[in-house]
Amino acid sequence: MRDVCVVGVGMSQWGEVWRKSFRQLFVDAASAAIKNSGVDHLDGLYVGCMSGGLFVGQEHLGALCADYLGMAGIPAMRVESACASGGMAIRAAMFEVASGASDIVMAAGVEKMTDCSGDDATYALATAADQEYEVFHGATFPGLYAMMAHAHMAKYGTTRDMLSAVSVKNHKNGAMNPVAQYPFEITMEGVANSVMIADPLHILDCSPITDGAAAVIVCTEEKAKALGKPYVKIIGSGVGTDTLQLCQRADMTTIKASTLAAERALKMAGKTIKDVQFAEMHDCFTIAEIVICESIGLYAPGKAGAAILAGETALDGKFPVNSSGGLKSKGHAVGATGVAQIVEIYKQLTGQAEGGRQIPGSPKIGMAQNMGGSGASSVVHILEVA
Amino acid sequence: MRDVCVVGVGMSQWGEVWRKSFRQLFVDAASAAIKNSGVDHLDGLYVGCMSGGLFVGQEHLGALCADYLGMAGIPAMRVESACASGGMAIRAAMFEVASGASDIVMAAGVEKMTDCSGDDATYALATAADQEYEVFHGATFPGLYAMMAHAHMAKYGTTRDMLSAVSVKNHKNGAMNPVAQYPFEITMEGVANSVMIADPLHILDCSPITDGAAAVIVCTEEKAKALGKPYVKIIGSGVGTDTLQLCQRADMTTIKASTLAAERALKMAGKTIKDVQFAEMHDCFTIAEIVICESIGLYAPGKAGAAILAGETALDGKFPVNSSGGLKSKGHAVGATGVAQIVEIYKQLTGQAEGGRQIPGSPKIGMAQNMGGSGASSVVHILEVA
Repeated sequence: MRDVCVVGVGMSQWGEVWRKSFRQLFVDAASAAIKNSGVDHLDGLYVGCMSGGLFVGQEHLGALCADYLGMAGIPAMRVESACASGGMAIRAAMFEVASGASDIVMAAGVEKMTDCSGDDATYALATAADQEYEVFHGATFPGLYAMMAHAHMAKYGTTRDMLSAVSVKNHKNGAMNPVAQYPFEITMEGVANSVMIADPLHILDCSPITDGAAAVIVCTEEKAKALGKPYVKIIGSGVGTDTLQLCQRADMTTIKASTLAAERALKMAGKTIKDVQFAEMHDCFTIAEIVICESIGLYAPGKAGAAILAGETALDGKFPVNSSGGLKSKGHAVGATGVAQIVEIYKQLTGQAEGGRQIPGSPKIGMAQNMGGSGASSVVHILEVA
Repeated sequence: MRDVCVVGVGMSQWGEVWRKSFRQLFVDAASAAIKNSGVDHLDGLYVGCMSGGLFVGQEHLGALCADYLGMAGIPAMRVESACASGGMAIRAAMFEVASGASDIVMAAGVEKMTDCSGDDATYALATAADQEYEVFHGATFPGLYAMMAHAHMAKYGTTRDMLSAVSVKNHKNGAMNPVAQYPFEITMEGVANSVMIADPLHILDCSPITDGAAAVIVCTEEKAKALGKPYVKIIGSGVGTDTLQLCQRADMTTIKASTLAAERALKMAGKTIKDVQFAEMHDCFTIAEIVICESIGLYAPGKAGAAILAGETALDGKFPVNSSGGLKSKGHAVGATGVAQIVEIYKQLTGQAEGGRQIPGSPKIGMAQNMGGSGASSVVHILEVA
């Protein structure tokens, strides 16, 4: 397998972007990544998107994006794994380069969610759950994660403050991210007193509905060197899956798909979790970040909440998590999220994180953990400075 | 790049399959492929599907399929390129094996279309066209291909009989295919007198709405040999794209994306079109098969119609096309079609085509040409006996 690098990244604006369409958001991010990397062509394009069909009435997204980027002709396809679609685009692009078939491939993610009504967006998102056994009966994601939160609280004594600490930390980081949807700080009291969505989750425990796109250029090390731009290596890629239905899992206080994905990515990288210095994690809800910290082996089961509350995952903590602001503050354009995580890891590893959110001490190895639905799929990548 | 082989295949029932769900169709095809190949595990799964969201209200299809196959845990993702989704699943699986990351990967395709109303299915299919510039104004696929047919007739004198000959030939082949949706022969008069859909296309010029799934096992040659089953090599894979809008193309009597895809696949294989002995082609409408025969270089522009009418692409002709019955007779479960093409190529190359449709003379090299929308994306694979 050939070594695969990330050599340039781009982001569109993230938020309620009323003046830009699905295709324009993609073009903004893709053009930025092309400019950032200096590449003069693409051998291929992978577009991560959860549901173009339900959000904007558009499928055939690989060809659409190649066309509107002005590159009709290049090989292009879309990949999907609900909210893990972006991470899967990275993986597919990596395999194409690793195989030797191509030298320079773009992995992008895009979702335009606010063109839907709130009800329609909730329905579209719910198609990441089991349509026949969960959605049909009225389950939506706040409800599913609320059940996970209650189970975690009952088993480990996880508290309201621990949940709130995730959100407060991520907003503190996101306040320094120029593309964040909600770039401002919030307080512990603010989270606890915000409107209830699905007990125990308040609205400030939940990531938002977001329009946005992200893109990265994936290439061989030879090409990366020739471009003369900062680059990092993708040293590990792992995917895990689990039952789509939350109720069929042996334990809903852990996300087994993420455990598998992290184990597989670390194995490919020849590393252990102790070698990793920081991570972007899929904090679709505050409880998710706590559960993921435990599922990937960073903390023992039931121990992450207290550690987060104590500041261990803050920007200046021993293992910073979601320096970008995470899904909560940066926003969660579902199909783009996994690619945006790689953008953040790249920026941190190359010392380019803006706004004062650069992690101290020049970290050398970072992890991106992305997942779909209530954790039925997860993809983990490990990146290292070249 | 490591050599990649196909070592086993499976199909579900194709047609209006009221008693089986999306997930069950997948499981039927996937289980058949596992049994056919004798593999004892999968390192990964790619599921081609055009629009789970619009057809059955379900996304997150990789994880869903892994789960219902009883394999929750394995890496899985869905790929999409409208009606070319199946061919893209083959390509992605091929790259994963070629890269060295995995040894045994399943590429599958599935679509459950008849759970929608006719109007809803037409809308879902139309999302393969440009939503903002075509669909919004009422364009649907019969209308887009009808325009291509009129343009081809005006430029080259293509006739009603040439269109009908495609359909008659494909039904003759499909009558011998046990999984075909419409396994019976039709006549030239029958096509010409069938109800008009979009002038000049009658209903017997159009592929049907189909429920169905297909699956193939893709692996290293070492694994294929160890399994002791017949296997073939994937020697070429190419993808091309074009503008999503038909009206933006320089020439609507050719499909440039297929020209690019075929050129790229042939280049990878180190072959020319003259080395290829038979093909499965994407005859979503009769005019499409004529245009594709010309676009991939099998016939000069304007020459395919007469050749098809003369029987050159019949099962006993000099270059058999759509021995399976094609999309017209076998059915067109859109996301599954590209995988079903590989199933047919595999069966023909290994001498396993049932029902009397085995191509005479033991062909050694076959091509599968799959495309999306009005030809904005196309994927071509070339397979050779090992």
